[in-house]
Amino acid sequence: MNLHPMKLVTIVCEAYAADAVLRLLAEVGASGHTSFPVEGSGARGRRLADIPEYANTQFEVIVRPELATLLLQRLGAELFPRYAMVAFESDVRVLRADKF
Amino acid sequence: MNLHPMKLVTIVCEAYAADAVLRLLAEVGASGHTSFPVEGSGARGRRLADIPEYANTQFEVIVRPELATLLLQRLGAELFPRYAMVAFESDVRVLRADKF
Amino acid sequence: MNLHPMKLVTIVCEAYAADAVLRLLAEVGASGHTSFPVEGSGARGRRLADIPEYANTQFEVIVRPELATLLLQRLGAELFPRYAMVAFESDVRVLRADKF
Repeated sequence: MNLHPMKLVTIVCEAYAADAVLRLLAEVGASGHTSFPVEGSGARGRRLADIPEYANTQFEVIVRPELATLLLQRLGAELFPRYAMVAFESDVRVLRADKF
Repeated sequence: MNLHPMKLVTIVCEAYAADAVLRLLAEVGASGHTSFPVEGSGARGRRLADIPEYANTQFEVIVRPELATLLLQRLGAELFPRYAMVAFESDVRVLRADKF
Repeated sequence: MNLHPMKLVTIVCEAYAADAVLRLLAEVGASGHTSFPVEGSGARGRRLADIPEYANTQFEVIVRPELATLLLQRLGAELFPRYAMVAFESDVRVLRADKF
């Protein structure tokens, strides 16, 4: 069995930021993702209040580690100033990672 | 780039337990989450049969490590006896963690 | 508090492969899962193009480590040749793991 260490990058954003996220994923060469609608809330504190209660989109993207770094850097530099969003990465082991 | 080690706490519960989960998240000070409807099944065994086939809600909550421990402790002590639910934590690295 | 190291196996597949995934989960003895519809795309490259843009299902399954290995092996051997799908595992710590 062929398990490859990769990164799972999760991005939660306002729905109207989804197109910008998709463009960035294409630009950095992230070759596959899933997305689904979620409710989200930043219930306490001014800083999280910018995530509205409804109409968020959650993206999950599997990428090689170096691509995760690039993706997060560009998210932070280019999209975080413009949209309410949260992004994080975690470690996964992917079956048949030659797909990515 | 500013990546902070945090915990992702995932809670899957019957939909009618969602309000109790939301109250607990607010009480422990978990400042943001997403939720979405899922189908779930505990297909085998008596103990999992208490998770019904439909109408579950999945919560995903990013918290600091010490808050993850508190949240899981209270889930186990206060909500697990009353509702069919599953909860687990994993390690994530969050961009712009000053949001949480 | 009782946290057990387990594996979270995530499977993203075309919706029409869902029944085959459910059968395999039952056969290997995976006792609980959630599933939800996702949009997915393999935006770049021939190899990911086999994941269609819509109508995918994401399964999330919590299993003991040895069962994760068996599940991934059988997914790779039996379902990957027949369906467009992606599968990966990650480490989680599960509250009240006697449920699984």
